[in-house]
Amino acid sequence: MTTSTATVRPVLIAGQWRDAKVAGTFQATDPNKNTKLEAEFPVSSWADCDEALDAAVDAAAQLRKLPTAKIAEFLERYADRIEAAKDALVEAAFSETGLGKSPRLADVELPRTSNQLRAAAKACRTGNWAMATIDTAAGIRSVFEPLGPVCVFGPNNFPFAFNSVSGGDFAAAIAAGNPVIGKANSSHPETTRLLAKEAAEALAETGLPAATVQLIYRTSHADGERLVSDPRTGATGYTGSRGAGLTLKAAADKAGKPIYLELSSVNPVVITPAALAQRGDAIVSEFMTSVLMGTGQFCTNPGMVMLVAGEATDKFIAAVTEKFSSSPAGTLLSPAVANSLASSVKTLCDFGAELLTGGGQIETDRCAMANTLLKATAKDFLGNPEGFQTEAFGNASLLLVADNVDQLCEAIGHLEGNLTGCVYTAEDGSDEDDYAAISFELAPKVGRLLNDKMPTGVAVSAAMNHGGPYPATGHPGFTAVGVPGSLVRFGKLTSYDNVRPDRLPAILGNSNPTGETWRLVDGQWSTSDVS
Amino acid sequence: MTTSTATVRPVLIAGQWRDAKVAGTFQATDPNKNTKLEAEFPVSSWADCDEALDAAVDAAAQLRKLPTAKIAEFLERYADRIEAAKDALVEAAFSETGLGKSPRLADVELPRTSNQLRAAAKACRTGNWAMATIDTAAGIRSVFEPLGPVCVFGPNNFPFAFNSVSGGDFAAAIAAGNPVIGKANSSHPETTRLLAKEAAEALAETGLPAATVQLIYRTSHADGERLVSDPRTGATGYTGSRGAGLTLKAAADKAGKPIYLELSSVNPVVITPAALAQRGDAIVSEFMTSVLMGTGQFCTNPGMVMLVAGEATDKFIAAVTEKFSSSPAGTLLSPAVANSLASSVKTLCDFGAELLTGGGQIETDRCAMANTLLKATAKDFLGNPEGFQTEAFGNASLLLVADNVDQLCEAIGHLEGNLTGCVYTAEDGSDEDDYAAISFELAPKVGRLLNDKMPTGVAVSAAMNHGGPYPATGHPGFTAVGVPGSLVRFGKLTSYDNVRPDRLPAILGNSNPTGETWRLVDGQWSTSDVS
Repeated sequence: MTTSTATVRPVLIAGQWRDAKVAGTFQATDPNKNTKLEAEFPVSSWADCDEALDAAVDAAAQLRKLPTAKIAEFLERYADRIEAAKDALVEAAFSETGLGKSPRLADVELPRTSNQLRAAAKACRTGNWAMATIDTAAGIRSVFEPLGPVCVFGPNNFPFAFNSVSGGDFAAAIAAGNPVIGKANSSHPETTRLLAKEAAEALAETGLPAATVQLIYRTSHADGERLVSDPRTGATGYTGSRGAGLTLKAAADKAGKPIYLELSSVNPVVITPAALAQRGDAIVSEFMTSVLMGTGQFCTNPGMVMLVAGEATDKFIAAVTEKFSSSPAGTLLSPAVANSLASSVKTLCDFGAELLTGGGQIETDRCAMANTLLKATAKDFLGNPEGFQTEAFGNASLLLVADNVDQLCEAIGHLEGNLTGCVYTAEDGSDEDDYAAISFELAPKVGRLLNDKMPTGVAVSAAMNHGGPYPATGHPGFTAVGVPGSLVRFGKLTSYDNVRPDRLPAILGNSNPTGETWRLVDGQWSTSDVS
Repeated sequence: MTTSTATVRPVLIAGQWRDAKVAGTFQATDPNKNTKLEAEFPVSSWADCDEALDAAVDAAAQLRKLPTAKIAEFLERYADRIEAAKDALVEAAFSETGLGKSPRLADVELPRTSNQLRAAAKACRTGNWAMATIDTAAGIRSVFEPLGPVCVFGPNNFPFAFNSVSGGDFAAAIAAGNPVIGKANSSHPETTRLLAKEAAEALAETGLPAATVQLIYRTSHADGERLVSDPRTGATGYTGSRGAGLTLKAAADKAGKPIYLELSSVNPVVITPAALAQRGDAIVSEFMTSVLMGTGQFCTNPGMVMLVAGEATDKFIAAVTEKFSSSPAGTLLSPAVANSLASSVKTLCDFGAELLTGGGQIETDRCAMANTLLKATAKDFLGNPEGFQTEAFGNASLLLVADNVDQLCEAIGHLEGNLTGCVYTAEDGSDEDDYAAISFELAPKVGRLLNDKMPTGVAVSAAMNHGGPYPATGHPGFTAVGVPGSLVRFGKLTSYDNVRPDRLPAILGNSNPTGETWRLVDGQWSTSDVS
């Protein structure tokens, strides 16, 4: 059936904002008030997915024929439009997520989003992400090329910067030359719709295929699995919960379709006794800023702190407990997040973690729960490492106290893959042996190893790895943030062997196509022409 | 049970050649005579795998502490030893595979193998594969690092160059800093044992951990699946049949373990009417050389030729049929290969392919079958694209005749992922429109696109892609041949964020560690020190 009620928002398929072929509707919640928002959004049936896939295949073919500079223009125009639409976007995102309007949404996340699109545009324009490689002696040249329609499933916690139609995966997929089918996160569909409107306008203004960006809001789980494994799909980017992510992974894997996942992570922070003895107060303060910012709803939130028993640790725990108790609890993204947090805290307590503060009832007039601090011993952890790595997404953290550094290292050896791991040690180098032992165990477990710095804050840098071993992601070699790394995920490697010079893609020709494109020519990276 | 019969060959685990914990034994066949070879090899039980994994984990930790130059030394010493042991290796490989002693085994494949090891050594020494990236402003530096023990399953068709303890995956995994557990191909266990002996000696001579290279010969299917998905395993490289490969992939995927597969491929060769009209005889000759070399047992063997109906095509078909009939049939690798070939030919005939020549009984005094040529129309193909892409591995090929270029392009659109795709067109550029249409459809389907050149022959080049979209491989972004691309598969990306300078890995320090290591420093590729 096709809905005819005007209140149900339209989907964006094949360049048309049209009524969805609905399998149902849903409403998002305003977490600031714990009430349903008025707008109704469609749950698309497979018919919508099917049409979107057909349109995306056409768009992919058209995009392959366009100069990459055109795609870069679109990304830049879109970035401009997002900035121009800031007020409406911030208003919508605040209503749907409860994240602070300023600085968070307006002054941090929105500029990050537009700048991410511009960075992707630059990589697209130069082609520097595509690793053009030329072997003149063998007559072979290779380059990463677009791999086809990319489905993007965005998370709940970054309504702009990881949004399925404006975020990091989106920017990377488009800059690599692929159309995107965005699946909105159900917690902020209106924000996503407003972004897609700007994207559609930017497409029209820059003359790109209209189906380069498409938007559906929700599907059944079965249709989601069908989408990521459809023969027409090139790849999928997913950021969200582990359960849903692994279900999609299983479907995509079976069909041989690449899927890039960013799943849960407890982001262990290890603090040595000497570090605490030398600057405990400063570390308390850094930790507090990191752990409760955004109500703890960051992928890289420090959800586990690993300590060695002793006086300085006791003092650290007392200070953090006091601050957790006395700090106001922020608003959580949705009722689902609040329920999941309460459930995870209960799970950890059931496994034997001690509740130091918080862990109480969910507030009823908004989505919130008291700041929650838990404690367990490394011995407890070693008895049930999987259980104690239950992610409590939100304003909660688990302190793990080891008898000594050896035991702490043993516990690190039982960590699953994480996005980040931090090590705080003495500034005077007096515990280098501890650092060596700890970092040797920790580095293989994490995508990013930090020293004397909390994990929140993910710079858009070529050297950033916002990734990590399974189950933090699906593959230890890819980053979701950073150019050019994030683009390569959406590329297909093609070698051109003995292909006539006039038939080569411009990026593989003898002339450097932009004068600033890095190419590996006969073993040397160069921006020169091939002689 | 532990076998005590001296005739059963030992496995190499934790640096010891010792009796296997056997679940059975097997013998290889001499395909030249179709008789069992004398030597018995063990089918290892899980106990062997378990010990090998433990030893590999230890070796991986030790390797992480060694300078990469030590690993490079091992690879070079091993290459030297392989060359010194040439006669025995060629003799064993000939007995187990039937491949020609010279030039094939002694003068082509063996030097390719040692040179591949040396190329990997060079990449290891410079670290150029590891994509060291430095962002001085953000204080973040990233690099690919070893990801842990790698299991390598080698194929039957290259007893040296893709051997699990000497081939491309092996060299790449070791050069990236990982120990290897090699699972011999059951068709050439003695060749593999001889290679592992040389590897073990080279390890001892260069002071690497003894468990850097381990060897088992065969396991149950269930234990194979357990091996690739074991928590101690870092990743797997597999080259072989699609069925076994996909079973291992399912197990590895479920455990979140990277697995790199090189599976079947029909390697379509498209020849335009104008090309045949201008130089049909030359193309017949090129095709014959490519398709029957090594009895057609190459991953990139041209198993499908796509043509447009017409006089020149009729002439091509007649000439090729005559040459297939009159050329002696080479020896196949094993009875299993002969049986599988006969079965695939029957399948294609059942689907409606016409048998032009060959397709007869398997010879009994050696593993061989008459050179086989099949023909079908593009219309037949479009009615059953999956069926007509049945790989007939060996000295067989399918000619597919389309009514016109449009229909030919439609057929290409239904191809699965392949390692290679070739296009032969007029030399005078008179059919550029045909080329444009054909290559636009073909390029997304293949890892390597060739012009006027047959697909056999896989140069070890930085620009080589010996890979391709599923189901040719498991991921469209990775190559199994070529340095540095093949090494990256066995790397884990690690960012170092705010890590103190004296704690950074040497490759990320301000000084360029070798003076010739390429690093991406603040957006510029450079071999200089960071100022």
